[in-house]
Amino acid sequence: MKIFGDSISGNCLKVKWTADYLGLPYEWIETGVLNGETRTLQFLAVNPAGQVPAVILDDGRPLAQSNAIIAHLAEGSDLIPDDPYDRAKMFEWMFWEQYSHEPAIAVARFARVYRGVEPDPKIMERGEAALRLMEKTLHTQAWFAGDRLSLADVSLVAYTRVAHEGGFNLAPYPGVRGWISLLESALGIG
Amino acid sequence: MKIFGDSISGNCLKVKWTADYLGLPYEWIETGVLNGETRTLQFLAVNPAGQVPAVILDDGRPLAQSNAIIAHLAEGSDLIPDDPYDRAKMFEWMFWEQYSHEPAIAVARFARVYRGVEPDPKIMERGEAALRLMEKTLHTQAWFAGDRLSLADVSLVAYTRVAHEGGFNLAPYPGVRGWISLLESALGIG
Repeated sequence: MKIFGDSISGNCLKVKWTADYLGLPYEWIETGVLNGETRTLQFLAVNPAGQVPAVILDDGRPLAQSNAIIAHLAEGSDLIPDDPYDRAKMFEWMFWEQYSHEPAIAVARFARVYRGVEPDPKIMERGEAALRLMEKTLHTQAWFAGDRLSLADVSLVAYTRVAHEGGFNLAPYPGVRGWISLLESALGIG
Repeated sequence: MKIFGDSISGNCLKVKWTADYLGLPYEWIETGVLNGETRTLQFLAVNPAGQVPAVILDDGRPLAQSNAIIAHLAEGSDLIPDDPYDRAKMFEWMFWEQYSHEPAIAVARFARVYRGVEPDPKIMERGEAALRLMEKTLHTQAWFAGDRLSLADVSLVAYTRVAHEGGFNLAPYPGVRGWISLLESALGIG
């Protein structure tokens, strides 16, 4: 497998971590978002949406969207719950991550770290709301779907662990901080 | 099953259409986004994220996120491809829908129709880019994942068929228009 990814992107790191966890061999092809490498004709042939991560599977077929890629790579593994309801909750959190978490927490980080501007206050409010919901959830459960590590956690931790770079203070979220440590240990990162 | 949904929301209609297509019985509980019904304590007990659609399954357990709900309801049905790659492509489009399509095309419609304001030009640009990618894709295939109707189509059609309400002109996208007709016929809507 070839993984086209930008090392600064949590979405791309999800794919790397999942492949590493599963012991899947891959070639990492650094593809920069900031220098236009996701907009070249060569890359658009891999992913016409012009977004990383994208992969070329061993049979030569392309696949895009971080959460779709990790769901495909992890099929049949212990990263996806066997129980249909737990699996549905896993996807619920993964869709929530892309709709309500990443567009706030990753976007704030991108603004501050890579564009050198203060994020829109509305973005910060949305990010705090996302962190509050995660904290509340982690008061009654250790993992986001089922009773062990799943792709929901992998997906959510990617930008949560670097939320401080976007200006979010994780001090009021002890549950989230503990869960990040647990994840970093489980995935061998950080 | 109880479906908590707002009839003006394409995300909610996805769930209704999928249940109808599969012949699943349900009670529709109209839950208004505009009048604060998604922010009541009663509703937050169903979905702490305060978003519709949400469902209470027959066993009493809740589930949220439109695309996670339809994936759960349709498990084992012909709306989800058997082939692992086609299934992965289905999820690719469903994640793309929530990240790159809905936040432009649904948000533009919401601004114009329900808030009476002109959408941000950047939102309109993002929406046109989404429509261009759909059109390009439909030049070489009839459906978004595999060789028949799947949840990728159900998910994408929800806001594409009302894109004109947000100010998008579908005339330059004949492939998209044909596909919408095909979908409306397959789902018995419109």
